[in-house]
Amino acid sequence: MTLDWWLNSTQPLDPVARDKAAARQTQLTKPAGSLGELERLAVHLAALQGRERPLIDKVWIAIFAGDHGVVAEGVSAYPQAVTGQMLRNFVAGGAAISVLARELGAALEVTDLGTAEPLEPLPGVRHLQVGAGTANLMREAAMTPAQALIAMQAGRDSVIRAAEQRHELFIGGEMGIGNTTAATALACLLLDCPVSELVGPGTGLAAAGVAHKAQVIETALKLHQSAAGESMEALRCLGGFEIAALTGAYLACAQKGVVALVDGFICSVAALLAVRLNPACRDWLLFSHQSAEPGHQRVLAALQATPIVSLGLRLGEGSGAALVVPMLRLACALHNGMATFAEAAVADRPA
Amino acid sequence: MTLDWWLNSTQPLDPVARDKAAARQTQLTKPAGSLGELERLAVHLAALQGRERPLIDKVWIAIFAGDHGVVAEGVSAYPQAVTGQMLRNFVAGGAAISVLARELGAALEVTDLGTAEPLEPLPGVRHLQVGAGTANLMREAAMTPAQALIAMQAGRDSVIRAAEQRHELFIGGEMGIGNTTAATALACLLLDCPVSELVGPGTGLAAAGVAHKAQVIETALKLHQSAAGESMEALRCLGGFEIAALTGAYLACAQKGVVALVDGFICSVAALLAVRLNPACRDWLLFSHQSAEPGHQRVLAALQATPIVSLGLRLGEGSGAALVVPMLRLACALHNGMATFAEAAVADRPA
Repeated sequence: MTLDWWLNSTQPLDPVARDKAAARQTQLTKPAGSLGELERLAVHLAALQGRERPLIDKVWIAIFAGDHGVVAEGVSAYPQAVTGQMLRNFVAGGAAISVLARELGAALEVTDLGTAEPLEPLPGVRHLQVGAGTANLMREAAMTPAQALIAMQAGRDSVIRAAEQRHELFIGGEMGIGNTTAATALACLLLDCPVSELVGPGTGLAAAGVAHKAQVIETALKLHQSAAGESMEALRCLGGFEIAALTGAYLACAQKGVVALVDGFICSVAALLAVRLNPACRDWLLFSHQSAEPGHQRVLAALQATPIVSLGLRLGEGSGAALVVPMLRLACALHNGMATFAEAAVADRPA
Repeated sequence: MTLDWWLNSTQPLDPVARDKAAARQTQLTKPAGSLGELERLAVHLAALQGRERPLIDKVWIAIFAGDHGVVAEGVSAYPQAVTGQMLRNFVAGGAAISVLARELGAALEVTDLGTAEPLEPLPGVRHLQVGAGTANLMREAAMTPAQALIAMQAGRDSVIRAAEQRHELFIGGEMGIGNTTAATALACLLLDCPVSELVGPGTGLAAAGVAHKAQVIETALKLHQSAAGESMEALRCLGGFEIAALTGAYLACAQKGVVALVDGFICSVAALLAVRLNPACRDWLLFSHQSAEPGHQRVLAALQATPIVSLGLRLGEGSGAALVVPMLRLACALHNGMATFAEAAVADRPA
């Protein structure tokens, strides 16, 4: 393993499978193009999976949790203890993503990258404890170089397990009180964008709380401005353990040939980092939804990403991506299972 | 049965179930409101079904097919024989809606309301033959009063069967070469809207074809302008058998207490007619998607309807509504299956 494994080449798309799938779409018994976005998804999945008839059967959902030192500045509506409490909830089956994983028949892997208060071992949780949460990004770098690398590797390791077990779709989710502050700071630095355009309520700050959060981010950006243009350094100074893990996971998806379905704002910032570190990974990322968090739209635009749905979600945990899985499955089922004009003896429109 | 059965009262919503469901949403382990549209759907379904925990398990999909005399004016990209050919495809399992019904475990009922060329009996198709297609709406009323009533009743009868078998969701679909012309004419008359704002390519007309279609509709509107303000007469003069059936079905859903999930442009025009005939039915209609057909947006606005997704679909057959069923099911699963803050011992935000 090289230290900068993320620079390794990604899996190429298959142009033959793509062309065959595109040709098949024109032969199915429906007006050409009438399944809109679902047709584009089916053809793109065919190119990624290297088969005319793609499948999204086995789904792998990996949740990465970690605490954030910047919570000391009062940037969240919820107390920090919630990160650890939600880890229990994930494995006990009561969280949104637990319900969704069950309904989808998806594998759910939960990784504790480091809570502020260390937890007793929880059955079903992988405890890595990269640190007792990150350092306070308003006052110092959030992570040491070693912590950032270990967290990225944790994401990569999860994708390797998913690929070994032949999962066709990777969904990364995050949990970490304070992580919209980290993600917003990162997006502002990476996109050279004013804080006021990206900052939002996160889990539910009122206007005064959002204004304070913006000030905290402004201070952090001044402190770490030398990291602009250096994606790894930006991640280290302003990110979080779970954001680093997601970045590593998306890069590994492209290298291992596993389609990634990106969740909301925080995941999209990790995806932006992944694309900055290795632009070729972009093809392997599908974007599931437009979040209610205001910064998301700008991050998606920078990624030239069109989300599949827009439902006003802002929960995290990979929940928005999970909600879109049936749409991908039905896009494949239609592509693979519909009759052609010839098979059904239906007249196509005159050429 | 009264001749104007659609005026009969609709099932009331249950305010107790709605309030209990809304209270439950605030107790689930997620930031308040963070599941966006899914929360509103779950609470509305609770009110409709009269239970704190709603369910969309059994889904009934009814396809209504019929031909249109106005096709003689050259308003469609496809030959008229396709209506009958697609009826075979629906029951043979090769059409988009056949694939979707299978994947969703939904019941699929296919009704032939009248093709231009009468068909031999097809196994699995209910042949009603209200007429050999409608008359040419550009030159005369599309239907006789009796035909319009029989077609509406066909929609109602399907809902009665769905309700008897305890289906929780009704999806109506349509098939009929030429039916965007009828639906556009109806929408223009009902909304007093210029043809140019609503007319579109349907199954795939090029610009010249759309311009010709607009002229046909203009001529029809002049001929039938006395029907403006008279919804039943508008339906009779400008509608189609399948549009009348859908109108009757949506009205019956509200009367029988079955939630209806409305598909795209043509179904939404039928929904608009239903709401004009009996405004109280509006509560029972959910709108699944924003179609690519340009007139849809205006019709949805008139219904004060926000569609759940927007995927550039323009296929019909109820396919867009079927694609949204998993979203409704997951909204219910989350609402019913997530842990509360108390159950999971997770700290809620301070009040």
